[in-house]
Amino acid sequence: MKVALLSPIAWRTPPLHYGPWESIVSLLAEGLIKQGVEVSLFATGDSLSNAKLEWVCPHAYEEDQSLDPKVWECLHIAHLFEQAHKFDIIHNNYDFLPLSYSRLVKTPVVTTIHGFSSARIIPVYREYNQHTHYVSISYADRHPDLNYLANVYHGLDLSHFTFQPDIGDYLLYLGRIHPDKGTAEAIEIARQSGMKLLIAGIIQDQRYFDSCVAPCLEKEKIVYLGPVGPAARDRLLGGALALLHPISFAEPFGLSVVEAQACGTPVIAFNRGSMSEVIQDGISGFLADDVAGAVSQLDRVININRLDCRQWVENAFSQERMVEEYIKVYQQILG
Amino acid sequence: MKVALLSPIAWRTPPLHYGPWESIVSLLAEGLIKQGVEVSLFATGDSLSNAKLEWVCPHAYEEDQSLDPKVWECLHIAHLFEQAHKFDIIHNNYDFLPLSYSRLVKTPVVTTIHGFSSARIIPVYREYNQHTHYVSISYADRHPDLNYLANVYHGLDLSHFTFQPDIGDYLLYLGRIHPDKGTAEAIEIARQSGMKLLIAGIIQDQRYFDSCVAPCLEKEKIVYLGPVGPAARDRLLGGALALLHPISFAEPFGLSVVEAQACGTPVIAFNRGSMSEVIQDGISGFLADDVAGAVSQLDRVININRLDCRQWVENAFSQERMVEEYIKVYQQILG
Repeated sequence: MKVALLSPIAWRTPPLHYGPWESIVSLLAEGLIKQGVEVSLFATGDSLSNAKLEWVCPHAYEEDQSLDPKVWECLHIAHLFEQAHKFDIIHNNYDFLPLSYSRLVKTPVVTTIHGFSSARIIPVYREYNQHTHYVSISYADRHPDLNYLANVYHGLDLSHFTFQPDIGDYLLYLGRIHPDKGTAEAIEIARQSGMKLLIAGIIQDQRYFDSCVAPCLEKEKIVYLGPVGPAARDRLLGGALALLHPISFAEPFGLSVVEAQACGTPVIAFNRGSMSEVIQDGISGFLADDVAGAVSQLDRVININRLDCRQWVENAFSQERMVEEYIKVYQQILG
Repeated sequence: MKVALLSPIAWRTPPLHYGPWESIVSLLAEGLIKQGVEVSLFATGDSLSNAKLEWVCPHAYEEDQSLDPKVWECLHIAHLFEQAHKFDIIHNNYDFLPLSYSRLVKTPVVTTIHGFSSARIIPVYREYNQHTHYVSISYADRHPDLNYLANVYHGLDLSHFTFQPDIGDYLLYLGRIHPDKGTAEAIEIARQSGMKLLIAGIIQDQRYFDSCVAPCLEKEKIVYLGPVGPAARDRLLGGALALLHPISFAEPFGLSVVEAQACGTPVIAFNRGSMSEVIQDGISGFLADDVAGAVSQLDRVININRLDCRQWVENAFSQERMVEEYIKVYQQILG
């Protein structure tokens, strides 16, 4: 089976720091190859993969202001579709734009919808609803107007997340600094519980950081670490008492939530979007409604068995499970 | 000959007020039909044309914040390319994105490059340089890396521009309010020459308007009229002593410059971009280097024969001439 995997070019595949879509595409590419699938990975030129790398955009447009995203994304997408005949299946992980090329080629296209950035993008998915195949990344993220062939939860390479049996002594916020992700709420939870909070992630909203995060930083109490690479991420996640994930939007998946649990660290999340699908409430973490709810759950977090967290991820969110499920999706499409 | 004409959907075709690309596509569509060409016009749903109107986007995205431009432009472009086999030729007037679909269909694509919004968009034009055909709208706007099949100057429907033999008593600025277009420089020229200035056009840069235009307005001296429709445009252009066009960028064509001359009104322009191609220096207007140069030319502007301005446009910038030249372009491509 010859698969063309289309990754975003916002970041390298796999990303150096941030880049959840690129991260999943990388795991899928490597996992498919292990299963004997012939994979061509369409990603930035500096991407690293055992797949055949196909590229036109030399590096991530988020890292180079001279690259116009719209220019490079259309060149990137066309580069794949112009070679469509070489593949049995095209697996689009690049949002909606590739859909508009899909009727111009004979190769079937399956699209993993990694999230809807806005309700304004639904018209494209609706237009191609009968023609292509959609995969959701959680049931919470499904749009009622669309037909889905499958739901495939993201998987992790569990070897990158070390199980830590000991209970940590700090709270962790790991994610983009953005109101959606609730950085300010995490600070408030830490303050009210009197615990130390470490904050890691890229600043996506500088104004939010300047007004709602920076003024709250306190030496050795509320600490911003900046973006962290894979090794530091593993250490930080494993060493925490709990990951705080007080999101204010319906998050379609929440990769860091699963990563924390893989390290044995329970998660206290606001119960929005997919959180009830990726956290076993009371077993691998707690779902809360607000800051007060999260603070009260912190008292119970030491009762969580860290091994339960790990095992939940091993069962439900492994790379192998994700790869198997995508192979089934491809087989189903190819009949 | 069956031609698919792809218009932008930023504005209606033809536009109600502003929308130079849509305006030219409309003139071309109507002119081609008169010459017996079968035209399908791909434009917004509320567009008006004798061509067969094809649309997915109900109205201009610039007039409706609920329409995501990226969403509707890809649906719009795909709607054409998915029907490519029905046409002998596709004439793209929609910037670079359609190029990335062009290798996926057999129908030849010709692209009129209405201007390069940024050097960062050149990579797409370069990529499709061998595959598609480019038409420039002035020699000044040609990019050295690209091959051009032809240069076709824009044309006007001369019946919409009334020749006014009498010399007017005010200066006119007609165009987007934006630093590129030199609204502030026009005000300075009017002030230094002690003449009345009328300013008409959409505010594209609100901050520029607030800081550099609004504070300079003076009752009955420097007057901002807002955007104007076709009838007011004709009256304003014809009634002026001169049109001021003190641009600070290499403008690829300058529709209002030609429209003014069609009404018999000479133009004083900064000598950038295509200005030396659309103005006959000393005959239908003057090319100046700066504000002082423009002010000194104002003394000589009464010597311009207004009929010469009109005749220059009749010869070089009529709708009929543009339509003929595009038919030649299509014939050349179809062999």
